[in-house]
Amino acid sequence: MSLAIAYLGPAGTYSETAALSYSTWLNTHHQLECQLHPYSTIAGSIRAIASQEVQVAVVPVENSIEGSVTVTLDTLWQFDSLRVQQALVLPIAHTLISHSATLEALKTIYSHPQALAQCQRWLETSAPTAQIVPTHSTTEALQYLDDPTAAAIASQRAAQLYQLPTLAHAINDHPDNCTRFWVLSLEASASGSHTSLAFSLSANLPGSLAKVLQIFAQREINLSRIESRPTKRSLGEYLFFIDIEADVQSSPVQDALEELKLYTETLKIFGSYTVLSFDP
Amino acid sequence: MSLAIAYLGPAGTYSETAALSYSTWLNTHHQLECQLHPYSTIAGSIRAIASQEVQVAVVPVENSIEGSVTVTLDTLWQFDSLRVQQALVLPIAHTLISHSATLEALKTIYSHPQALAQCQRWLETSAPTAQIVPTHSTTEALQYLDDPTAAAIASQRAAQLYQLPTLAHAINDHPDNCTRFWVLSLEASASGSHTSLAFSLSANLPGSLAKVLQIFAQREINLSRIESRPTKRSLGEYLFFIDIEADVQSSPVQDALEELKLYTETLKIFGSYTVLSFDP
Repeated sequence: MSLAIAYLGPAGTYSETAALSYSTWLNTHHQLECQLHPYSTIAGSIRAIASQEVQVAVVPVENSIEGSVTVTLDTLWQFDSLRVQQALVLPIAHTLISHSATLEALKTIYSHPQALAQCQRWLETSAPTAQIVPTHSTTEALQYLDDPTAAAIASQRAAQLYQLPTLAHAINDHPDNCTRFWVLSLEASASGSHTSLAFSLSANLPGSLAKVLQIFAQREINLSRIESRPTKRSLGEYLFFIDIEADVQSSPVQDALEELKLYTETLKIFGSYTVLSFDP
Repeated sequence: MSLAIAYLGPAGTYSETAALSYSTWLNTHHQLECQLHPYSTIAGSIRAIASQEVQVAVVPVENSIEGSVTVTLDTLWQFDSLRVQQALVLPIAHTLISHSATLEALKTIYSHPQALAQCQRWLETSAPTAQIVPTHSTTEALQYLDDPTAAAIASQRAAQLYQLPTLAHAINDHPDNCTRFWVLSLEASASGSHTSLAFSLSANLPGSLAKVLQIFAQREINLSRIESRPTKRSLGEYLFFIDIEADVQSSPVQDALEELKLYTETLKIFGSYTVLSFDP
């Protein structure tokens, strides 16, 4: 049996590295063969699960420097059927790829806006006169490299895959740069140490968010993350995405979710999962 | 006396429209003359206050569809001296600008990623074959319009300012599209109905965020917004930005802030301010 995995392509993106690491892990631990399918947007890779083109999608959800990948949260909220099957944590090291022999000769540097932001100080110091140009993906940036005064910021794997020379490695401003990915599918895993959910509140009462967080606190369920997103209805109305460190099937969580329903307008439970960390 | 105002330029951006609306309001209500100074990045316009090139900066902080402008929050956190003097709410209506007479003839559409995201469904329906290209600002997108198969998404004001033809107006997917701006300066306004603050927690104890929110809830201080941002130290460590609907000088808030200090590692209070809403 072969598992079809969607990711933000083309080959050479960090999403592909995450999808490859996951597929190697599945093969080693579950003897499962995987096929990787690139999509041109994160939203497209998520929709491919609902339309059953693929069984799972590996999508970035949060970077330790740039924060949430909002398109992932906003797209996930649009579905009732999607579950988080697994979390993956991948260290991120950006590489400057160019046919130029020196940094001084660079006139233009291309990359995805998140990668550019993560190397901002390095760029200001090491290539202060180069023009910075955003692209849709780190891999798309590679298409400009015929010009020897151009450089792209992408992964080391992209440099190897497309046989391009590396001008500088690990140029990210913060060395502890990690991205958390979610493996989404129509089925939840049976159980896990982490549970993710999202909700809108039924009224903007003073203290209603405090009340909701207290439901978890008084059961000693640790909240590892809270993220607000606009409902897109009007300014000042939010959805909340919450990660808790407990299994959804445990009785304190079941109990908390029952009470939570009293305060929420819509509640979506994305299931429980474990976290796999990959080495650089 | 003349007030120097920094904004994300060049002329024609939504930040310029916000800065212009604010300067007209200051002129009408306080007989204050203003000079607008464009900066090429939001971070640069904020740093210009600290370096005293300008007295204030008008910066976007949140859009009703796309959520927080994270660079504004992250840059503000880097300073101890900056205060919010005023909030501005501006309705956003995107215009498709092109020398083309028809949508069918368009091959490429340029704009800032936030504007592209806000028109995503319209683009998929009305120009499904056009290539979408991100730019640094909505105004930068206008420089590609010599090509009659190109279009830019920008403000109506940009079309007028650069005397360019409008192909379609109000193409944003959600009609209730507003952006909240902050007027930042080294001085807080004397008082106001809203207060903004940010903090890191001194320990990731279970329920410590719940405890902090409860400090406000038990004093019936309404929380209108909470936003988490990574500390950039390690994945899973956050700062929290909070807006409350009360004046920082009021005794319940003073009392709450005293208690809050018991749970925070760093606490930054950006002051109190009023909200000015502008019509389309």
